Amino acid sequence: MNKIKIGIVGFGNLGKGVVSSVKENEDMELFGVFTRRPLGNFYSNHDVNFYKYDDILNYKDEIDVLILCGGSAKDLPEQTPFLSKHFNVVDSFDTHNKIPDMYSKVNESSFENNKVSVISVGWDPGLFSMNRLIFESILPKGNTYTFWGDGVSQGHSDAIRKIQGVLNAKQYTIPVKESIEKVRNGENPVLTTREKHKRVCFVFAEKNADKEQIENEIKNMPDYFVDYDTTVNFVSNEELLENHSGMPHGGFVIRSGENDVHSQIMEFSLKLDSNPYFTSSVLTAYARAAYKLNKENSFGCKTVFDIPLHYISPKTREELIKELL
Amino acid sequence: MNKIKIGIVGFGNLGKGVVSSVKENEDMELFGVFTRRPLGNFYSNHDVNFYKYDDILNYKDEIDVLILCGGSAKDLPEQTPFLSKHFNVVDSFDTHNKIPDMYSKVNESSFENNKVSVISVGWDPGLFSMNRLIFESILPKGNTYTFWGDGVSQGHSDAIRKIQGVLNAKQYTIPVKESIEKVRNGENPVLTTREKHKRVCFVFAEKNADKEQIENEIKNMPDYFVDYDTTVNFVSNEELLENHSGMPHGGFVIRSGENDVHSQIMEFSLKLDSNPYFTSSVLTAYARAAYKLNKENSFGCKTVFDIPLHYISPKTREELIKELL
Repeated sequence: MNKIKIGIVGFGNLGKGVVSSVKENEDMELFGVFTRRPLGNFYSNHDVNFYKYDDILNYKDEIDVLILCGGSAKDLPEQTPFLSKHFNVVDSFDTHNKIPDMYSKVNESSFENNKVSVISVGWDPGLFSMNRLIFESILPKGNTYTFWGDGVSQGHSDAIRKIQGVLNAKQYTIPVKESIEKVRNGENPVLTTREKHKRVCFVFAEKNADKEQIENEIKNMPDYFVDYDTTVNFVSNEELLENHSGMPHGGFVIRSGENDVHSQIMEFSLKLDSNPYFTSSVLTAYARAAYKLNKENSFGCKTVFDIPLHYISPKTREELIKELL
Repeated sequence: MNKIKIGIVGFGNLGKGVVSSVKENEDMELFGVFTRRPLGNFYSNHDVNFYKYDDILNYKDEIDVLILCGGSAKDLPEQTPFLSKHFNVVDSFDTHNKIPDMYSKVNESSFENNKVSVISVGWDPGLFSMNRLIFESILPKGNTYTFWGDGVSQGHSDAIRKIQGVLNAKQYTIPVKESIEKVRNGENPVLTTREKHKRVCFVFAEKNADKEQIENEIKNMPDYFVDYDTTVNFVSNEELLENHSGMPHGGFVIRSGENDVHSQIMEFSLKLDSNPYFTSSVLTAYARAAYKLNKENSFGCKTVFDIPLHYISPKTREELIKELL
């Protein structure tokens, strides 16, 4: 059997996750990683072939699907439209309000070049989006709730680090358990921001910093913290590194059908030790879909809403019907 | 906008559920219900048009999709292959080992007549199957666990009712909470039948029946009870009717990724007041998919693995990408 040859663009947490995920999928093999950083940094450390990003077009005939592991702010808005002209691509573009624009750009470039692109793949957007669609289609009268966490928010951690006197910080978003229970019990509550999530911060401050002042500044930060119940813990840098250097995340999508007669609850949830490694696993499964679709002469941009599920599996339709239906 | 005209075959719990579900979907209208029972029984009770099943082919041009609400043992093996020649159909055929055979029969009859059929729609087979596929495609190394309940098992209740001295009975299948917690904690346990589910029975017995003998017979019944921890409660018929006449059900599909570095847990669950009404809601959403697919000149038999999710929604792809992705 010909293995699906995967190329990776970018070698941050997401790119490393794809390296690991490709190894778990027996129908795939890693062609290599394209990076803009100096190649010398990498050669000795990893069992992976590295290439210069600038040379990427030289390899267009050797790669079946390119998984784009850059960030949504700066990398993907450039890379996905460009690379989709030359490769089948999958990305995790997650700037919600810019997805329709990205979609039409990438759809055009993929179509014109007989390629398939799959954008906004991951868990949110991605699996959570799929469940929101399934849930409201099946129970049209009702409410959908999304809770995130327990998990690290990079944006909130960064915001704390910018406060004077703070040397390092980590912020956890934690869903309010009582509210989840109300939703699961079919109470269809109306929940404020504060009732949905709380925020817990671990801060390593300068020795002589005014901790009370730092705590106040965090708790009253507009947009980031002021609408939440926030707890601030001051810890040593050692404790921060030892206990809070992981990237756990997860969340819950819950639909509560509203109906005079019956309460029907649908729930999808994730509990992830590593947020980026999980997103990588989803990207890798959808890279298989991009490959299979393109082999069938399907072209253009797809989302998780457009791709029949059997395409993400290494099994044939017949096997799936027999084994999993 | 033209509403999707839905016909229903069969007026048991599932058929009644579809009547209620069609009302919740504004893009649909109910053409009527086809039944083999004497029509006189129905006319006065329901705000629904009833027709004789034997006349069904007279209405083939007036119905967009027929939802088949008969049983998997006797009705569907006859009805789905026959009706798929004349209508777009959706069924909930759930005899797992006969699905491949049903698929090929129905695929042929639908194809030859330019119709779409969707078989084995519901929650298991159906939504649970979809999640099993998604989960193992994303986390190829790991274990998938399915737990059912808390819910009424019709088959087990019937088995108890056949015991001498039993007048009425209801059996609940209950997942073992401790085992679910082990799975959620990423322990990847190997679970015996007994460790996965327990069985709780409510029995109304004849006045002079030997209760000890009945309890023994239940607990030692091969296949049905002997491999489970079973509790038998003797109750009055009043209590049985008052507290145990509902049809709740639900369950959990959990994937625990097995990986040296990270524990990643994916979970899909349902908590249903009414098992048949929920299955009806799934059938109704997939009837929309059958309608839309057929409008696009797609023919043949489909399963939940084959249909892009946007087909089950009343929203357009553009709306879905904007609102739900």
